[in-house]
This record gives sequence, structure tokens and C-alpha cells, in this order.
Amino acid sequence: MISASVHETVQFYHLDPMNVVWHGNYVQFFENARCALLDKMDYNYPQMDASGYVWPVVDMRIKYVRPCRFAQEITITATLLEYENRLKINYLISDTKTGEKLTKGFTIQVAVEKNSGEMLYRSPDFFIARMEALV
Amino acid sequence: MISASVHETVQFYHLDPMNVVWHGNYVQFFENARCALLDKMDYNYPQMDASGYVWPVVDMRIKYVRPCRFAQEITITATLLEYENRLKINYLISDTKTGEKLTKGFTIQVAVEKNSGEMLYRSPDFFIARMEALV
Amino acid sequence: MISASVHETVQFYHLDPMNVVWHGNYVQFFENARCALLDKMDYNYPQMDASGYVWPVVDMRIKYVRPCRFAQEITITATLLEYENRLKINYLISDTKTGEKLTKGFTIQVAVEKNSGEMLYRSPDFFIARMEALV
Amino acid sequence: MISASVHETVQFYHLDPMNVVWHGNYVQFFENARCALLDKMDYNYPQMDASGYVWPVVDMRIKYVRPCRFAQEITITATLLEYENRLKINYLISDTKTGEKLTKGFTIQVAVEKNSGEMLYRSPDFFIARMEALV
Repeated sequence: MISASVHETVQFYHLDPMNVVWHGNYVQFFENARCALLDKMDYNYPQMDASGYVWPVVDMRIKYVRPCRFAQEITITATLLEYENRLKINYLISDTKTGEKLTKGFTIQVAVEKNSGEMLYRSPDFFIARMEALV
Repeated sequence: MISASVHETVQFYHLDPMNVVWHGNYVQFFENARCALLDKMDYNYPQMDASGYVWPVVDMRIKYVRPCRFAQEITITATLLEYENRLKINYLISDTKTGEKLTKGFTIQVAVEKNSGEMLYRSPDFFIARMEALV
Repeated sequence: MISASVHETVQFYHLDPMNVVWHGNYVQFFENARCALLDKMDYNYPQMDASGYVWPVVDMRIKYVRPCRFAQEITITATLLEYENRLKINYLISDTKTGEKLTKGFTIQVAVEKNSGEMLYRSPDFFIARMEALV
Repeated sequence: MISASVHETVQFYHLDPMNVVWHGNYVQFFENARCALLDKMDYNYPQMDASGYVWPVVDMRIKYVRPCRFAQEITITATLLEYENRLKINYLISDTKTGEKLTKGFTIQVAVEKNSGEMLYRSPDFFIARMEALV
């Protein structure tokens, strides 16, 4: 399957009073990697918009294994799991230096026709064709 | 079971270019309700700290049913589901006026001893006793 | 001059490892009060949009007098200072219970025509007329 | 004077419904560059903490010249302006490819003794000596 990785450094503003990344801030880390993956698929936000569909996240899960700390260098990898009926992407955050697994999770997105606002129960044909050529 | 509700108004800074609340910002809404629930349990952050335990979120799921829009008034309800081995809390976000269900999810927290950094596989006795008196 | 106040409770996710509100999070508090003020002027985001103008913030200053802490109840007051050439709004954040002054600042916004993207060096006539009727 | 630059890519979650970076999110960009500068000074958060002082931001100004858009590559440069009585740092955000100036601003921080909570009207001697050796 296709995957993409990005590297980030934990910033002070990511932290909470426990000196670890506040659990809600991992959603941003996931999105950084997802956009890198969508770039590989040539279907990031601008291309989604041009295709007449938006792809809202309808389900998200995050499992926190180990905390991230100030200045820690982390690698976030997004991997495409499903694309035919919905876009399911897996995430793994690990320590860039040690490779230690820190956080994992997934998001599920579905296609919604921009004009009608109608949700699709199967991905648009052009998108499936593109993915089949790519995978 | 114990539950607590808070009311919020969707702000401009919660929104993304699709004119809906960015999916990562719901984590803040959940936390607003969770802290109201923890207040009812007399075990919010200051009391956690005084008790010698921190309770990191180790698992979170969010299911997005309908988008939230600018100036929408929403009610977030947190309900305690489990407390003996871990703290499992359910969330429901609904439109304050119509009652329409917008988002749901849960978080799971576990007790970690502050001094040793050790994770507990059962909630501390004093906490279980307090919850039994309350529920 | 017109002014509007909102009340907020400092949340855990507003805090940084120093146990005080991270300085960047005050921008959200300012916006909460600004939108309450814009509601009084009947010129919040939806009305701006309908009028054919956007009003980007072009200048912002924040002076931090005293830190805000977990669960502190704060009052944010936004006061309209100028409207003829630009929208200048002053902010004061104070402790709701003691009245102690915590933070102050201002924002400056200018009108930009949505279609042309052109910045105006004087507020649109309809807006000045509305403000003169109101002030 | 000492300065440090970092490179960032504008993410979807930085944007507001106007399709530009929400004005409050620039505070994070400033902090990314400030921490790179503090690293050069060997006086980032961990070293501040070890020295017995915290350095809260007491004043911040941001002037927004041109908006930042999705996927734009930006360079943020932080430059030390003053260190004897307070830490004044200037910021410049520019488009990485074109060099076009996008945003500028400054922050002012003062030393506060961690134990006493007392604010200093002059930077600690060890810090001035370190800066004099560096500049």
C-alpha cells in the first residue's frame, strides 16, 4: 500500500502542564502525514476541491502508547488502507532517533458531492481508477 | 451513571476552509465536558495532582455525524462509563436548540503514579471508594 | 463607545508547562469578545460576507500583565475605538471575581472588497452610516 | 545580532474559512523561530528552567502584510534585538520561494525568578555575560 512520512519537532506550544504533548494536538501531526500521503496520490485539498468532492473525516481513533516531550523529533507515517468505499488511513508516530512507537491511530473519510452535499457510499469512479493505477 | 453537560458557541477560529469545525477541534469540546464531569466527581486536575496520580488519555475515538457551523450553539455531554480499572467517558455533542446529534466519541484514561511513573492496571482504592459512594 | 463582554473559564488545553495560559491562546479569547461586539454592531462574519467585504486583522498587540491559571474565570471586554478608516478594537481581560486586570491589547482590521481583493483606505459608506446611527 | 530561521509549510488546520492562515496561528510560527534562536543562544526552555528563571512573554505585536495560503512554504526568521534588561526578538515571515514579506512582529520577555516569582528589571548577570560572549 502507499504510505508517506513526515518529520516534526515537538514544540513548547504542543505541551500541556504535564510536560507532554496534549492528546488533542496529535490530530495535527496525523494531518501533516495525511497531506503528504494525499500529495503522493495527487489528491490533496486543491485537487479534491477541483474534482467536485470534499472528504470530511467521519471517524478517528488515536491510541497513545508513550508520551512525546519537548524538542523530541518524531516521524509520522500515514498508510492508505482502503479507498474503494471510503478513505481509511492508518497512522504511526515513532521517535525519529530510536524508532520507538509513540502513537498510532486511523481516520476514515467519505466523499461528499460539493454541489448537492450528498454523501457517497462508494468512492467516485475517477478516484478508484486513479488509485488502481497507483497501488 | 454520572454525567455533566456544558454549552459552547462555535467560534470562527474553530472552523476550517470548508466552513465547518475542523475535526481536531472537537477534542477541546470533549475536554470542556470531561472537566465538568470531573468537577462533579471532585476529581479534576488539581485533585488528581494532589492525590499523587496523573490520568493520561490512552485511547480516544470520535465519530462525526453532522458538521458544526459558525455561531452554532452546541451542548456537550460527558458520561462516566467505567471507573474500576480505567476511566472511560462517553461524549455526545448535540445542537442545543434542535437536539440533533452532531458528534459522539469516548476517551479512556488510566492512572499513572506521579512519583514512579508506573501505570496502574486497576484504579487506586481511594478513587474506587469515592466513585462507589457517588454512583 | 460600544463594548461587549464575554465570560470564559480557562481550560487545561489553554495551559503550557508553566501552568499558565500559553501566550498565543489569548488571541482566541480576544476573538470571542470581538464577535460579541460585532454581534452588537450587527456586523459579525455572516453580515460581513453578505456585505461583500472581508475584514482581515492587519495589526494586533497583546500586553500580558498577569498570568491566567487553570479553571480561572475571566471576563473579556472588547471596545470599539475607531471605525471610519479601519476597525480598531481594544481588549481587556480581567479576573471575573476580583476584577484584577490580566491582559490587554488591540486589533486593527481593514475592509477588503471580496471580489476585487482591493484594500480600502476608508470604511465602506454603509458601514460608517450604520456605526454613526449606533454610537 | 544573532538570528535564526526555520522553514514551515502552511497546513490545512492553520487556515480559516477565508482560506488564509487564521491570524492567531502566527504566534506558533513565531515560537518555532524563537526556539531555534534560543537554541543558538544555548538558552531554550530546558536551559531556562535549569538556570532558575522563566521568561514569560509580556508584550507581543504582529503586523500582517500579506495572507499565507494552503501549502505555502514560508521562512520565519527571529532576530535578537535586546537582551540586557529584557529579551526583545523581532520576527519576519517571508515566502520561501519568492522572498516576499508576509508578516512581521516582535515579542518581549522578562526574567522571573522561579522560586520567588519575582520579576527582574535587568537580565540575570550570567545571561548578560553569555550574550556578550556570543554577540
